[in-house]
Amino acid sequence: MITAKIVGAGGYGGVGITELLLSHPEVKIKTLVAATETGMKMSELYPHLAGFIDLPILKPDDAAAQEPTDVVFFSTPDGVGMIQAREELAKGAKVIDYSGDFRFQTKEEYAEYARRLGKPVEHKSPDLLEQSVYGVAELRRKELASSVKLVGNPGCFAVGVEIGLAPAIANKLVAFDSLICDCKSAVSGAGKKVNPSFHFPARYDNMNAYRLTGHQHVVEVERELRHIAGEQINLCFTTQVVPACRGILSSLYGTLRPGITPADVMEAYRSFHKGNCFVRIYDRNTTIGTMHVRGSNYCNLTVDVDERTNKLRVISHIDNLMKGQAGNALQNMNLIFGFPETMGLDRPGQYP
Amino acid sequence: MITAKIVGAGGYGGVGITELLLSHPEVKIKTLVAATETGMKMSELYPHLAGFIDLPILKPDDAAAQEPTDVVFFSTPDGVGMIQAREELAKGAKVIDYSGDFRFQTKEEYAEYARRLGKPVEHKSPDLLEQSVYGVAELRRKELASSVKLVGNPGCFAVGVEIGLAPAIANKLVAFDSLICDCKSAVSGAGKKVNPSFHFPARYDNMNAYRLTGHQHVVEVERELRHIAGEQINLCFTTQVVPACRGILSSLYGTLRPGITPADVMEAYRSFHKGNCFVRIYDRNTTIGTMHVRGSNYCNLTVDVDERTNKLRVISHIDNLMKGQAGNALQNMNLIFGFPETMGLDRPGQYP
Amino acid sequence: MITAKIVGAGGYGGVGITELLLSHPEVKIKTLVAATETGMKMSELYPHLAGFIDLPILKPDDAAAQEPTDVVFFSTPDGVGMIQAREELAKGAKVIDYSGDFRFQTKEEYAEYARRLGKPVEHKSPDLLEQSVYGVAELRRKELASSVKLVGNPGCFAVGVEIGLAPAIANKLVAFDSLICDCKSAVSGAGKKVNPSFHFPARYDNMNAYRLTGHQHVVEVERELRHIAGEQINLCFTTQVVPACRGILSSLYGTLRPGITPADVMEAYRSFHKGNCFVRIYDRNTTIGTMHVRGSNYCNLTVDVDERTNKLRVISHIDNLMKGQAGNALQNMNLIFGFPETMGLDRPGQYP
Amino acid sequence: MITAKIVGAGGYGGVGITELLLSHPEVKIKTLVAATETGMKMSELYPHLAGFIDLPILKPDDAAAQEPTDVVFFSTPDGVGMIQAREELAKGAKVIDYSGDFRFQTKEEYAEYARRLGKPVEHKSPDLLEQSVYGVAELRRKELASSVKLVGNPGCFAVGVEIGLAPAIANKLVAFDSLICDCKSAVSGAGKKVNPSFHFPARYDNMNAYRLTGHQHVVEVERELRHIAGEQINLCFTTQVVPACRGILSSLYGTLRPGITPADVMEAYRSFHKGNCFVRIYDRNTTIGTMHVRGSNYCNLTVDVDERTNKLRVISHIDNLMKGQAGNALQNMNLIFGFPETMGLDRPGQYP
Repeated sequence: MITAKIVGAGGYGGVGITELLLSHPEVKIKTLVAATETGMKMSELYPHLAGFIDLPILKPDDAAAQEPTDVVFFSTPDGVGMIQAREELAKGAKVIDYSGDFRFQTKEEYAEYARRLGKPVEHKSPDLLEQSVYGVAELRRKELASSVKLVGNPGCFAVGVEIGLAPAIANKLVAFDSLICDCKSAVSGAGKKVNPSFHFPARYDNMNAYRLTGHQHVVEVERELRHIAGEQINLCFTTQVVPACRGILSSLYGTLRPGITPADVMEAYRSFHKGNCFVRIYDRNTTIGTMHVRGSNYCNLTVDVDERTNKLRVISHIDNLMKGQAGNALQNMNLIFGFPETMGLDRPGQYP
Repeated sequence: MITAKIVGAGGYGGVGITELLLSHPEVKIKTLVAATETGMKMSELYPHLAGFIDLPILKPDDAAAQEPTDVVFFSTPDGVGMIQAREELAKGAKVIDYSGDFRFQTKEEYAEYARRLGKPVEHKSPDLLEQSVYGVAELRRKELASSVKLVGNPGCFAVGVEIGLAPAIANKLVAFDSLICDCKSAVSGAGKKVNPSFHFPARYDNMNAYRLTGHQHVVEVERELRHIAGEQINLCFTTQVVPACRGILSSLYGTLRPGITPADVMEAYRSFHKGNCFVRIYDRNTTIGTMHVRGSNYCNLTVDVDERTNKLRVISHIDNLMKGQAGNALQNMNLIFGFPETMGLDRPGQYP
Repeated sequence: MITAKIVGAGGYGGVGITELLLSHPEVKIKTLVAATETGMKMSELYPHLAGFIDLPILKPDDAAAQEPTDVVFFSTPDGVGMIQAREELAKGAKVIDYSGDFRFQTKEEYAEYARRLGKPVEHKSPDLLEQSVYGVAELRRKELASSVKLVGNPGCFAVGVEIGLAPAIANKLVAFDSLICDCKSAVSGAGKKVNPSFHFPARYDNMNAYRLTGHQHVVEVERELRHIAGEQINLCFTTQVVPACRGILSSLYGTLRPGITPADVMEAYRSFHKGNCFVRIYDRNTTIGTMHVRGSNYCNLTVDVDERTNKLRVISHIDNLMKGQAGNALQNMNLIFGFPETMGLDRPGQYP
Repeated sequence: MITAKIVGAGGYGGVGITELLLSHPEVKIKTLVAATETGMKMSELYPHLAGFIDLPILKPDDAAAQEPTDVVFFSTPDGVGMIQAREELAKGAKVIDYSGDFRFQTKEEYAEYARRLGKPVEHKSPDLLEQSVYGVAELRRKELASSVKLVGNPGCFAVGVEIGLAPAIANKLVAFDSLICDCKSAVSGAGKKVNPSFHFPARYDNMNAYRLTGHQHVVEVERELRHIAGEQINLCFTTQVVPACRGILSSLYGTLRPGITPADVMEAYRSFHKGNCFVRIYDRNTTIGTMHVRGSNYCNLTVDVDERTNKLRVISHIDNLMKGQAGNALQNMNLIFGFPETMGLDRPGQYP
């Protein structure tokens, strides 16, 4: 049995990992910390948790918030983990950070990411970057070993796109300069903070593209693809919001290289993801949607070839709050603590 | 470890109990039966279950469908259980039926219920009615003993209203001729069958009242209140549909009897539901909604008195597919098999 | 042709009257004023208006904002109209105010209203109250004559409830101490301002009751009923929010007085609303919902008697932004300027 | 003043044109015809129309249904217009057909379209095809002259994609073999007919791609692009459904040809659509969504270049029931009858 601290407990990422850890047989939640809504009990902020967890939400500078735990989840904005992680590591904790702070192993890569967000490009703990591991098991399972102490959990768009494109890159199925990622997210991907664009009446029957100038998640996706391909790959990456609560559907396109057949494509995907317990692969004759991964940690891929235009077309489906955030974070925790990868994640979600 | 058969596996009530049993430590699903969508695997009909349950959905007359199990859930329309339950009981199974077939202990009561639905008023197995128990633990826990073999699971509107009114009736807080139940249901309460009224474009921004001529659930509610009060109580019962997926919010009104104070009311509710592990009680200063019981088996009650008009006002919140259906059915199973009442139900749901 | 000024143009009430006036053959919008989002064009704030109205949104203290117009709509919070209306009246304008500032004719009544809202109870222009008229034509058509210069537009809940209860009060169909109003509103009723409760993920599958301590709209409803009945009538008034954008469905209950028959009830409703061009009356056998008044100025009433409990049951349907706000304001404008009552309002809305 | 007949009045396309014609100063609706729901009044089927139009819905073989009118709208499935249009033309009517029956001018093109749908490839009135005009004014305004008697209204996906791609093709901005159309539709695009995929609980939080094997609308889009380019252009065309009621957002991609600059692109779009009164053009710095064309006949284009990947990226926004169906049909009617193009369409829709 290990103990857990959740920093940023009040947001969707915090309540998500809280719900999951409550059912995890090897973890006990010991401490909840947040910058706002402190003083309340977690079950006052989230009444559905009444009777399940009645811990108070502590201020970061509260003495009780400093107590060591075996794992610390930073469900916090960019810039928090890079400052606070060091102390937790010093206390012997393993740290899993949801933000961009530890997704990169060099300060130059981080700087590029920060530039996209218009944030200060300087990393506050560059020395920690080397020991951090990017937390996408489907691409980096070997590295997510029990020796790892610091994990950078991926961006929600990134993880779905990476799982969907990796087999095509690894097997050189497509021309690397032809990739287009058309990504649609449900609203919860933007978090709990209110925003005029996510006010119910403004959103209930509205779809829109946003941040066409460039989404920050593209940086880590291109880094992962470069890691696989051995060369830089630039993506045309479009992010859109639709009036749903949970789910990201990413349509991924690339021009097939000469001689690649639909059978080659399907075989490449099946073999690449063999052993990835949270990836399911379908062909275009099965109708699936984001609802079929809702509340679970799965990434479902529809793998298709449009023969009239010689294009690879992959539809990637995830729950942005599970595989895109808390579920994936728990998967990482399982791996670096040597628990079974699916522990606490072996549930299908509820339908409808 | 006991084995379970689910008849009517293809509907919301069937998939709901399937999801729950998959996480229940003492039950193994052995057989899935349905009248339609037979031949498919459950995980083809419900892709979110792929990897969790790959049993086929059997025709009722399939030999394998006849195999005995320890518990049989009939998630079927009125009229099915009353015919098929006998055989399952004869094989030694305990039966939990979701329909109105076994909610009543006399054929006269059933006939009144059937009349409301415009169905044949004759019960096909009147002799079984005596041994059936009405499955609302909050009112009938003592009767839901391990000797019970046949349970009539309540209607979704009924269970929320009964839990919300019982303390007021038991403690004679209100004039019995003054009760009004204004009930709003999300759409999943109507089940999986398509209907022009529940077609997305017809529903997404639409609220309406329906069946003003009288909803069948009122019959069992009045029976339960009569059971508590020792006299007939007629309810003004209004059912409405709102554009949500899960949840029933019932606003319950009655005129306070002379001398009853707000403190008397709160005390009566707290003491009545003491020991009811799935009931939470709030006062009017706490803002809660149906989302706080979403995906869980709880019934949350806001207990209030409108002093300007001397009215009791109780707001009852349930998830119609959990406390209103599959969750409550599992609670009943736990009780009649002697498992802990909350086994397999001790999860808070996912937010948002 | 008259000219119009809209103060509070940036909110839902402002954009609503803007849309309506654009199609009104006798009105030209001359001036748009708001406290926030000033400097932008209206068509930048509301891109759907591009090409229809490109006027700038002026600051209240902008010189151009002072220019006189024939009619001024105050789509502003409580407390604004009571200060600014005087000057517009002095310039010869007729004023229609959406807030509570001019719904009452005495400062005592206003004080009671303000108390409910926890606002300062003192009215800043008590002398103007006498000349103001409450703008519900279905109850006050005679008073809404061309001599009127100041109209208090009703609350959104209030107008639907008043139209639904007035015939029962006027004809003494029900016991006056038995009235219960169970009102469900869509989210736009709370306006454009962001709020955690109306953040899409927090609302999309959530219903809740709120302000059980007492909603301010009850004050004007009770005042209107008193006006009809000649005695004080207290209402049990419950407000709820459901995950929809437009619409208020109010279920209205009262105990029938001895000897009142369903036929009496229907006759009373039909005769009371004869000549009310925006009221449609249905019996319980017609299924209608809020979608059937969506985008139009109608109030649809389902008039019913529950004979088992001897209760009157009226279901009132309005679009909270039309009959509940801008549409009703335009109806008032038509009346006090002597235009046909339906001018600019003779459209059915769009389905679905 | 001309008279209109609407065949297929009961569907979304029928009620949509009915609503629009009610506000058109030059048209009187004379006859409503449908295959189902006949015998009812239109205002019984669509209660929001009560008081606006109380005509009965006639059976096709009803004598009154045969009466001639000046214009006939066929809001009917493929295969109806091709049989019934001849008779209406013979009576002197002009015909506007919503289906694929008259979108093509040769039976070979129609056959390709029908093949996509798995329908009989033979056209029943091939001789009429030559005189039909494809009803997209933005591409074919000159042809939509007062001499035209037969118009094939475009597919909802097609019109948004064609308006979005035409400037790029006409100006050879992109490589013709690089085009990808990623289209997301709201649910009303599938019409009024119930379907398990559009049952509220199955859809409210679900996005999915469908018909990956090839959507029939691609045929007319490729035909229009070929018409502009003078050569065959194959599109990779992906259709998706999101949980909204109205709106199509299409993300359109192509690789820029050498030397094409962002300025060239914007200039090409502005000049191509100069004079297209229902097209608005935005750059990537303006956030617009489908809600800003909701209820209006506009097509809003966000025109962008992703310079990192040298891709043209155009986001096309329409209301699938307006510019995608009834609104566009009315625009066509205006053109072929010599009315102002915007007559009856000069309204912005209602927000929110």
